[in-house]
Amino acid sequence: MDIEQFRKAGHQAIDRICDFNYSVEKMDVVSSVEPGYLRKALPSEPPEQGEDFSKIADDYQQLIVPGLTQWQHPSFFAYFPAACTFEGVLGDLYASSVTNPGFNWSSSPACTELEAIMTDWAAKLLGLDKAFLNSNETGGGVVQTSASDSVLTATVAARSLYSKLHPDVSQDKLLFYTTSQTHSVGAKAALILGIKVRSLEVNLSDNFGLRGETLRNALEEDIRAGLHPFIIVATIGTTSSGAIDHLNEICVVAQEYSLWMHVDAAWAGVTLSCPENREICHLSFVNRYVQSFCVNFHKWGLVNFDASILWVRNREYLTDALDVTPPFLRTAQSDAGTVIDYRNWHLGLGRRFRSLKFWFVLRSYGVEGFRQHIRKGIELNKLFSSWVSSSTLVELATSPSFGLTVLRMKAPKHPTASQDFLTRKLFECLSARKDIMVTQTVLQGIFCIRFAFGAERTEERHIVAAFNLLCDEARKVNEEFKIRNAEHDKVITVKSLRN
Amino acid sequence: MDIEQFRKAGHQAIDRICDFNYSVEKMDVVSSVEPGYLRKALPSEPPEQGEDFSKIADDYQQLIVPGLTQWQHPSFFAYFPAACTFEGVLGDLYASSVTNPGFNWSSSPACTELEAIMTDWAAKLLGLDKAFLNSNETGGGVVQTSASDSVLTATVAARSLYSKLHPDVSQDKLLFYTTSQTHSVGAKAALILGIKVRSLEVNLSDNFGLRGETLRNALEEDIRAGLHPFIIVATIGTTSSGAIDHLNEICVVAQEYSLWMHVDAAWAGVTLSCPENREICHLSFVNRYVQSFCVNFHKWGLVNFDASILWVRNREYLTDALDVTPPFLRTAQSDAGTVIDYRNWHLGLGRRFRSLKFWFVLRSYGVEGFRQHIRKGIELNKLFSSWVSSSTLVELATSPSFGLTVLRMKAPKHPTASQDFLTRKLFECLSARKDIMVTQTVLQGIFCIRFAFGAERTEERHIVAAFNLLCDEARKVNEEFKIRNAEHDKVITVKSLRN
Repeated sequence: MDIEQFRKAGHQAIDRICDFNYSVEKMDVVSSVEPGYLRKALPSEPPEQGEDFSKIADDYQQLIVPGLTQWQHPSFFAYFPAACTFEGVLGDLYASSVTNPGFNWSSSPACTELEAIMTDWAAKLLGLDKAFLNSNETGGGVVQTSASDSVLTATVAARSLYSKLHPDVSQDKLLFYTTSQTHSVGAKAALILGIKVRSLEVNLSDNFGLRGETLRNALEEDIRAGLHPFIIVATIGTTSSGAIDHLNEICVVAQEYSLWMHVDAAWAGVTLSCPENREICHLSFVNRYVQSFCVNFHKWGLVNFDASILWVRNREYLTDALDVTPPFLRTAQSDAGTVIDYRNWHLGLGRRFRSLKFWFVLRSYGVEGFRQHIRKGIELNKLFSSWVSSSTLVELATSPSFGLTVLRMKAPKHPTASQDFLTRKLFECLSARKDIMVTQTVLQGIFCIRFAFGAERTEERHIVAAFNLLCDEARKVNEEFKIRNAEHDKVITVKSLRN
Repeated sequence: MDIEQFRKAGHQAIDRICDFNYSVEKMDVVSSVEPGYLRKALPSEPPEQGEDFSKIADDYQQLIVPGLTQWQHPSFFAYFPAACTFEGVLGDLYASSVTNPGFNWSSSPACTELEAIMTDWAAKLLGLDKAFLNSNETGGGVVQTSASDSVLTATVAARSLYSKLHPDVSQDKLLFYTTSQTHSVGAKAALILGIKVRSLEVNLSDNFGLRGETLRNALEEDIRAGLHPFIIVATIGTTSSGAIDHLNEICVVAQEYSLWMHVDAAWAGVTLSCPENREICHLSFVNRYVQSFCVNFHKWGLVNFDASILWVRNREYLTDALDVTPPFLRTAQSDAGTVIDYRNWHLGLGRRFRSLKFWFVLRSYGVEGFRQHIRKGIELNKLFSSWVSSSTLVELATSPSFGLTVLRMKAPKHPTASQDFLTRKLFECLSARKDIMVTQTVLQGIFCIRFAFGAERTEERHIVAAFNLLCDEARKVNEEFKIRNAEHDKVITVKSLRN
């Protein structure tokens, strides 16, 4: 493809992306394809001769788009939102047009410098302490692919530091703490590193947040057993229920026992952009105690995947653990120590120019626009969860959290089926639909359904529709099992509480 | 930004990318910015109010482009090429416009299905055995971010398998083999995993390729010392010199000792697309013995970063090592076992829709176009290295390999400075220029300069210019140290050997 062919194909792509955005709301959220659909449609090997790009672009529309789950659909409430802003798309476009692996400063100065500045901007947006700024030259931020990479990187640094201080401790005796509500990235990091993991219990009565007492008891028990706990991964906003660990308690215990404290705020971290959320997230404890902190802007934070920022209080712990410099990677600027070489701040070597989309998004929205977006998601969730609270069909399984409501069927007054069974039935009914997508979870053995808000296109009318649809399905489940919870099984009609 | 604002900004971006491509050859390869240039130019925090995108797009041109190292410049010979095709850019553009984390089949069926098919297409392009195809449902391929992730993932699988077979062996006794020429990704993987690493010696006389005998001796010695070697990372095309380990010998030894064999063909793997390179790369041994195999298409292989494929002979070893499934990640299709969930084939969870750019590139180029691109790089390197061979100023430091020539200054006949010192001086002179970029390496203690070819825009006239420039600088170095290697210190004028 030559430059003018690219111009044509590029303009077509932009126009088709516009078409897609005009029509996405009318599409199904959930794809109807069956496993193996694409293998049937494509040849089993690449063509011998090159094909015309217009044919390829048409095939994308006909074969790929129908096989996508539409995460940008306003009725996508599954998992967490996947940011997809036009500014993010443009950032990716410019970045991939000058592709370079940006592993050290001289391999593309702009990439390193913009990343250092953008992670500082993001830190300020969230109210992080200056200890986490690159500009202070002690701590700093780095863009990672995902929260998995962030926790893995933090754990490698923590282990390296621990081993340096305790050279005689065997790897087999190291212990990694998560909670039973920590995202699986925690357990996966320990699995990858071959380190023992202990999942600490959390309870509904604490809103599934870890207490300091639980941590202290575990530490005492494990140390008595000859183990060496060296890190705890705490969470602000767990995936299952949006729980917030009691950082005000556990930070103090962690410090007392010299545990590295990593906070995974992958989803809820962006809510710190609004000052009214900082206390409930224990921001002052993050700022005072935490060694490493992660926020995925590619969820609720308007920056397209991949955009996970890891901040550390002490960059030397990262570079001490990860710096391997063969001769072919040496540069004059690095040798002089005047620049950041981001390859020593993460697991891999090559990296994409990801800070560009942060720059585009943060400038185009401004702090005000960013906050407005977050507040809208929280507002919609409040509205939705208030309807759940007052429903005769469904109920909250735990307190709503920022943009997440976790619910289940109400217990039947005259049981013909268990509450858990009914919720599973409801989830099956919802999952069979193509016009909405939600996900399941299990909280303390109880099966629940998650509704996550915060997708950019979701407006009040979409959650009204979602709630009515939820009630319809719940009513059908109740009817199937001859359950009458309400005196009069009347249709609930929701109108906006704000109108 | 609304849809029509995006249309305008998108068309402008495409046009500006076209302008960039028309002008890149006239730009400097190396940026002239000084460390810290961007922090001086940008505000220290994000704006309160959103800004107009046209201003942001202009700032990209004025502040970012001058700070880029131009990896797409035809006179960029540093490191290895970074693929940047228009097809790759379009693949990234469409992918980021429907951003979704694609971690399991149902989170976007098309993403998983296209990846399984594209890694099969790529396997067939390279002549890999059907054992490595997804379609056989035992082995398969997965797109990883980089060769670092690939080797790390393979090592985690190998360690998990080894620990299952030998549950009593302590982590502290595990041993990981690389060679002294293996890319630092090997040592970094061992560092990350906290595993002992032994770097096996290779010699100039073997063209820096590992011999079977060396491996066998190490195994016997290490096992006697109570260690447990469980993986060897061999290379087809090392970064320093393009060396190929003697897979024909080491595969047999590895099998005898039940070592997991990972082959890092990150750079040179794409040359297997041309059947004439398969024997020298020991492809039949890869096909018969190797457990995991990695090729970065984002280097010489026309697919924009990130596009590293990891193939494995047995996918169960990956999923056994990496599958952590909390309730919120369960899906009906996964429970039924009818689909691939790629999140269990790599370290993280979320992932970009990277197979799209493979599809665009492989279809647009076709097998023929892909081979033509690889053969052009090899041809240019042959030409360039032949000029080095017959030069009175510089000489080959080791045999040229595919698209890589490693050279140094000729030893002075009447030494006023050491050969190594002169080569360092030459590298300094080349590094001070902005119109060419090369990188250094050290081979068996000898300082060398690398010229890597294969960037799409590099034509014969560019390597003619590069060689003349190299000779100019070498001549100046000789003059500075009063070295007269040639009888008559005449100007070398290179004309194409093919004209």
